[in-house]
Amino acid sequence: MSTAAARRVLVIAGLGKGSGTGASAARLFSKAGYSIALVARGADALNTLAQELNSSGGNAVGFPVEAYTPKDISNVWNSIRAKYPAPSFAIGAAIFNVGQSVWKPFLEITPEDVQESLQVNVQTAFAFSREAILTFKDNEISEPTGKKGTLIFTGATASLRGNTTTSAMAAGKFGLRALAQSLAKEFGKDNIHVAHAIIDGVIYSDRLVELRPELANDSNARLSTESIANAYMYLVNQDRSAWTWELDLRPAHEKW
Amino acid sequence: MSTAAARRVLVIAGLGKGSGTGASAARLFSKAGYSIALVARGADALNTLAQELNSSGGNAVGFPVEAYTPKDISNVWNSIRAKYPAPSFAIGAAIFNVGQSVWKPFLEITPEDVQESLQVNVQTAFAFSREAILTFKDNEISEPTGKKGTLIFTGATASLRGNTTTSAMAAGKFGLRALAQSLAKEFGKDNIHVAHAIIDGVIYSDRLVELRPELANDSNARLSTESIANAYMYLVNQDRSAWTWELDLRPAHEKW
Amino acid sequence: MSTAAARRVLVIAGLGKGSGTGASAARLFSKAGYSIALVARGADALNTLAQELNSSGGNAVGFPVEAYTPKDISNVWNSIRAKYPAPSFAIGAAIFNVGQSVWKPFLEITPEDVQESLQVNVQTAFAFSREAILTFKDNEISEPTGKKGTLIFTGATASLRGNTTTSAMAAGKFGLRALAQSLAKEFGKDNIHVAHAIIDGVIYSDRLVELRPELANDSNARLSTESIANAYMYLVNQDRSAWTWELDLRPAHEKW
Amino acid sequence: MSTAAARRVLVIAGLGKGSGTGASAARLFSKAGYSIALVARGADALNTLAQELNSSGGNAVGFPVEAYTPKDISNVWNSIRAKYPAPSFAIGAAIFNVGQSVWKPFLEITPEDVQESLQVNVQTAFAFSREAILTFKDNEISEPTGKKGTLIFTGATASLRGNTTTSAMAAGKFGLRALAQSLAKEFGKDNIHVAHAIIDGVIYSDRLVELRPELANDSNARLSTESIANAYMYLVNQDRSAWTWELDLRPAHEKW
Repeated sequence: MSTAAARRVLVIAGLGKGSGTGASAARLFSKAGYSIALVARGADALNTLAQELNSSGGNAVGFPVEAYTPKDISNVWNSIRAKYPAPSFAIGAAIFNVGQSVWKPFLEITPEDVQESLQVNVQTAFAFSREAILTFKDNEISEPTGKKGTLIFTGATASLRGNTTTSAMAAGKFGLRALAQSLAKEFGKDNIHVAHAIIDGVIYSDRLVELRPELANDSNARLSTESIANAYMYLVNQDRSAWTWELDLRPAHEKW
Repeated sequence: MSTAAARRVLVIAGLGKGSGTGASAARLFSKAGYSIALVARGADALNTLAQELNSSGGNAVGFPVEAYTPKDISNVWNSIRAKYPAPSFAIGAAIFNVGQSVWKPFLEITPEDVQESLQVNVQTAFAFSREAILTFKDNEISEPTGKKGTLIFTGATASLRGNTTTSAMAAGKFGLRALAQSLAKEFGKDNIHVAHAIIDGVIYSDRLVELRPELANDSNARLSTESIANAYMYLVNQDRSAWTWELDLRPAHEKW
Repeated sequence: MSTAAARRVLVIAGLGKGSGTGASAARLFSKAGYSIALVARGADALNTLAQELNSSGGNAVGFPVEAYTPKDISNVWNSIRAKYPAPSFAIGAAIFNVGQSVWKPFLEITPEDVQESLQVNVQTAFAFSREAILTFKDNEISEPTGKKGTLIFTGATASLRGNTTTSAMAAGKFGLRALAQSLAKEFGKDNIHVAHAIIDGVIYSDRLVELRPELANDSNARLSTESIANAYMYLVNQDRSAWTWELDLRPAHEKW
Repeated sequence: MSTAAARRVLVIAGLGKGSGTGASAARLFSKAGYSIALVARGADALNTLAQELNSSGGNAVGFPVEAYTPKDISNVWNSIRAKYPAPSFAIGAAIFNVGQSVWKPFLEITPEDVQESLQVNVQTAFAFSREAILTFKDNEISEPTGKKGTLIFTGATASLRGNTTTSAMAAGKFGLRALAQSLAKEFGKDNIHVAHAIIDGVIYSDRLVELRPELANDSNARLSTESIANAYMYLVNQDRSAWTWELDLRPAHEKW
């Protein structure tokens, strides 16, 4: 059976309550024919999203983790590979959309805040990347992209700049960016594409609608999750002759 | 007559001999229904490309300039606006693909080299941007992107790093990047999208086929101009809620 | 008793075996009249260095830690403050020279490697910074610098660039840089100066003499620890009207 | 006659009205024993400053230029070399402190604004650099620094970021930074040190005292020119084993 006939699979980690970037990416890739492996904490939101995708003709399965730890992430990839075995399936796209935000003046930040930011943003990302890279390496080259797989990381303003209340978050997000760049440089030669998207602004969410409805309704001022998902789809579809390591995404009226 | 009914126009400057990034972008946007205003030095290559596009059902016109100077660029935009008047047409996309490369040790660089790099990469870009911005400002918001126009600049490795033989080129390319960032920050509030693409590698060209055929044939090692054009189309289609100022593009096996 | 009469104290963490940057900084600041609180793992090297400084007329005390953990670092600062109480002493300079280098292809990096890089480079730096900042805040403004204290971090090439064998180290060093920038922005208003030095090259060491004597002897090709110490002294002496967050340091013949 | 016995000469271009960074650097280097070649537009301010330095035991000569053009700059270096011939003198330090600031919304910027920014910030800097590098190459290695010369450029916030009113200035300052980085990489192997200082804030000046005396008097909020001069002296004194390409300088309370 040729790779061409294999059903493409997207693994996506970090889904919040189902109204964010991860969920929009899952919907977009599902509509495009990908099977979707959904990874998040909490089975409930996962199941709701999986059901939604499946009732629209998709093929989605939730893989809950207890916590975003390297061990849980490694285990969940074993389950995903078992559920989507080659050659029927080709796991060729993975999105690490997990994050841990802490906004506090430095002197209020606890050692636990730092540890959690590093664990979720960096250590878990290392584990997720290892599994994705190992899985991609076994893939055949996929056409027309000429790639074995695409691994995307969601970054933030704090990936590029530390600031007065973001020391813990920025430490994690800078670390994630370092990982993304290292992987991009190391695995390009294996036709594995690694990309890092810097989300430089407020993202639309159900919670934003509650807290600041005027902002949530202004598409000049906050990022739509569908538009971020479009960016991720564009990155996955880039071919090997001209692919992107890093792009920024921000609303039209954002000051930066 | 509503904007929706206006025929979309792309202005693209910098077409080399018709085998490069500019020509590929012209083809892709023409196929997508854009009228194309082609700007370059030398009427011959322009006419050949315009004919090619028109014989495939496109609507392209060549606008030759004698040189890449601010004055010539301003004049040519007047001609373009006269040819594609509102409300029948909406000039909503512009690509500045002009460049001037000089690879020389610093002590071999002449004042003329510096002046030419700055004139072509920076001064002409200022004039091109001024005309594009003024034109876009008169547009209505276009749906579904929510934008009045998109202005894209082609950058290079030398946009980010000066090096032992690139002082003159890097001075121009750094300057162009400064312009792109300044415009992006100033005109976002007017729903005008300005983007900068860093081409970090060798681009496929007829000349590359002659000089280094093994490289030209290896899609892991050099950028395809069609793939760069895809990136420009993606940028033009980004909506106002999540657009990109800067992305890099490089081949899979590039060392960086 | 006025601040002017207080004896200035430098706290420096990260001393290796006494032949590196930390030791050179200790010697330079000791010669300039600072009391030196030496923090490192392993009491032996600490005691040797303290003896050396004291026998040259200095006032140095070793404060060994079992490991570079947030807790050990916090505890050791308590001991340092007890040893050098105000108003007789003013702890106004601190250097975090601790680092953990791992050079491995990504797939050989273990979760423990990542954890250790993050713990040493980031978590311990957060703890060290917290103690330094809290201590500095209690200082009076010192003249002629107009500062309450200076906190310096030692960075590396991997602070700015991830690469094929540096993912774990770069994750830690990027994280440290994020912390340094966040602190610089938050505590400038309190006249606390935070700086980050990027050491972009090989540093002279006893071990380098053994392994690559020709490199160790070539002052064009490797950094002298005395020169790095000079940079740190310059940073500590910068006044509040014009201070530096970040500088790079590399040998003359380094390719970069 | 050995280099050691040669009198060291600093060439400094860009002196404003004698109350700025250039004048402070001239005073500091004069006090340290350098002969000073002062380059600026307008003979009056030059002569006043030269007189001041000479009456304090210095050895300073003014070299007025009509305008900051490549040609005038080349000519003036010929005069300087004639005035300070080897082996009695060694021209081993040069500071390019010339700048052209334009603060205007993009649509108010004229082609002349752009041209002037590029001419002063970039083209003149190329000419100045060429003369400095050629002069330094003929020097012997100077001890204890192990260098043949140091070339310093004054940058600004606009060297790193374009913004809503700085497109023309940023284009010039980005271009200058590209030149500085290219030179640093190319001539390090010749033991010529090139550095770039980013002045990220308002600089004290007589004019600032008039316009905003409360700001001019607050050393937390504006840069002292003496402190910038100290930075330049530190850079000139760095030895070849660990020198700096770029550092930033800003006041303690600056927001960034």
